[in-house]
Amino acid sequence: MKLATIRLEDRTTAVRVEGDSLIDLGLRDVGAVLAAPGALEAAATADGPRRDADGALFASLVPRPGKVVCVGLNYQTHIKEMGRDLPEFPTLFSKFADTLIGARDEIHRPVETEQFDWEAELAVVVGRQVRRANEAAAEQAIAGFTVLNDITCRDWQFRTREWLQGKNWDATTPVGPYLVTPDEVGGLRPALDIRCEVNGQVMQQDNTGDLLFGPVDLVRYVSTMIRLNPGDIIATGTPGGVGHARTPQVFLNEGDTVVTEIEGLGRLENRVVLNGAR
Amino acid sequence: MKLATIRLEDRTTAVRVEGDSLIDLGLRDVGAVLAAPGALEAAATADGPRRDADGALFASLVPRPGKVVCVGLNYQTHIKEMGRDLPEFPTLFSKFADTLIGARDEIHRPVETEQFDWEAELAVVVGRQVRRANEAAAEQAIAGFTVLNDITCRDWQFRTREWLQGKNWDATTPVGPYLVTPDEVGGLRPALDIRCEVNGQVMQQDNTGDLLFGPVDLVRYVSTMIRLNPGDIIATGTPGGVGHARTPQVFLNEGDTVVTEIEGLGRLENRVVLNGAR
Repeated sequence: MKLATIRLEDRTTAVRVEGDSLIDLGLRDVGAVLAAPGALEAAATADGPRRDADGALFASLVPRPGKVVCVGLNYQTHIKEMGRDLPEFPTLFSKFADTLIGARDEIHRPVETEQFDWEAELAVVVGRQVRRANEAAAEQAIAGFTVLNDITCRDWQFRTREWLQGKNWDATTPVGPYLVTPDEVGGLRPALDIRCEVNGQVMQQDNTGDLLFGPVDLVRYVSTMIRLNPGDIIATGTPGGVGHARTPQVFLNEGDTVVTEIEGLGRLENRVVLNGAR
Repeated sequence: MKLATIRLEDRTTAVRVEGDSLIDLGLRDVGAVLAAPGALEAAATADGPRRDADGALFASLVPRPGKVVCVGLNYQTHIKEMGRDLPEFPTLFSKFADTLIGARDEIHRPVETEQFDWEAELAVVVGRQVRRANEAAAEQAIAGFTVLNDITCRDWQFRTREWLQGKNWDATTPVGPYLVTPDEVGGLRPALDIRCEVNGQVMQQDNTGDLLFGPVDLVRYVSTMIRLNPGDIIATGTPGGVGHARTPQVFLNEGDTVVTEIEGLGRLENRVVLNGAR
């Protein structure tokens, strides 16, 4: 099953994607589907007004997640290019919901950065509340997967020892277009091609099977600390090929187009626009 | 003006504190007062059902803030005890709303930590949406101040280079009891005695006038990146005297009582209970 949150004239609505059709589920967004008991299961067969998938305007998949937990270093390729050793524990930071945008929205490149970089990521979407989840509970807590690009201001990321301020700029993080349930992509540790292109040039290309800490591991680890709630998102980290680690370095500019794609999950396509007064 | 969020039998409500009386403002919590246009100004003179302040049950002041931004190193005393240089920029990390508890609630000490530590902090509560605030806009965006204790699992904080996982355990962060408007404490850069006691022993004692980055500076800096919304909280950092930096080190255990107090703002008093299965 594939779900999405689309924008209508005066509101958003959650839909199930059936080929070229979108079936309106009568709930405000995918976050509301996940939060309402039984609604995710019911969505699989629910009927409702049909809309044309062509030209649909995707909102951020879960517009107001309570938590967006991100993993810093999780692909062997990216760990090596950043000059680090393989970690014993996942490195975690977080994003505020105001960073999130839809799958075709414009990415706001702030005038305050000179080093605006891409990070294509597989994201886990939580479907049930869990705390201190064991393996089985963690598996059941995963509603599905989506695509996210953790666009980062490298200069701000490295201003201090904490990464937060490189990762939390308004309207920089596309997420979506779909919530895809695990059965559609081979289960809870999917091995899918992941790719980021800038202006048609492939910058990152890897496979989500290379993750050191998989989706179930991450749900277990994070839920040790804090409850995970329906709609929470875990971004699982990015593979090698970021602009900061290239020689010479390459960064995003106004007018660039960033495509972030994971096999079987979908494609984000976002144009970079300048944000803020020069 | 002092506002609080108190628990009733089946809900919470926002109140104005008038000596021994609490005047019910008819809104669900202080977050709702801040979010409703004009409600904070109206709260100063609003009338409503009166309740006895004695025995009031304080909920977390703003139960679901969209952002809790924390400053890592901001008092000269604490920067020195942690062995660091004075920073050019504030170090920022964040907390999820599920960490927050009320002013008299039990602090959940997870069984997974051996190094459960205190960090008394002055917190800024945002009253207006701002982005890229200049000095005047930042001043106007501050609704007031409260008290927060950023209780930290040091062993988890230092597992990786990002602090998030030491700072984001369920039900560890008392905040409140009051939102106190700046006029009650000498303005927007208050110089107030701040103190943390454990079982009656003074562990931290400083003055909020020692902050390197003051409340207005922090609103300006954070809002450069991301919009701040009504109800968002900025915890401004802790002074020297944390358990981790003592010789020998001292940490919190089951049954300990932590008192966190800022002159003119109020007092948190929280007992530590064990959380999780041994």
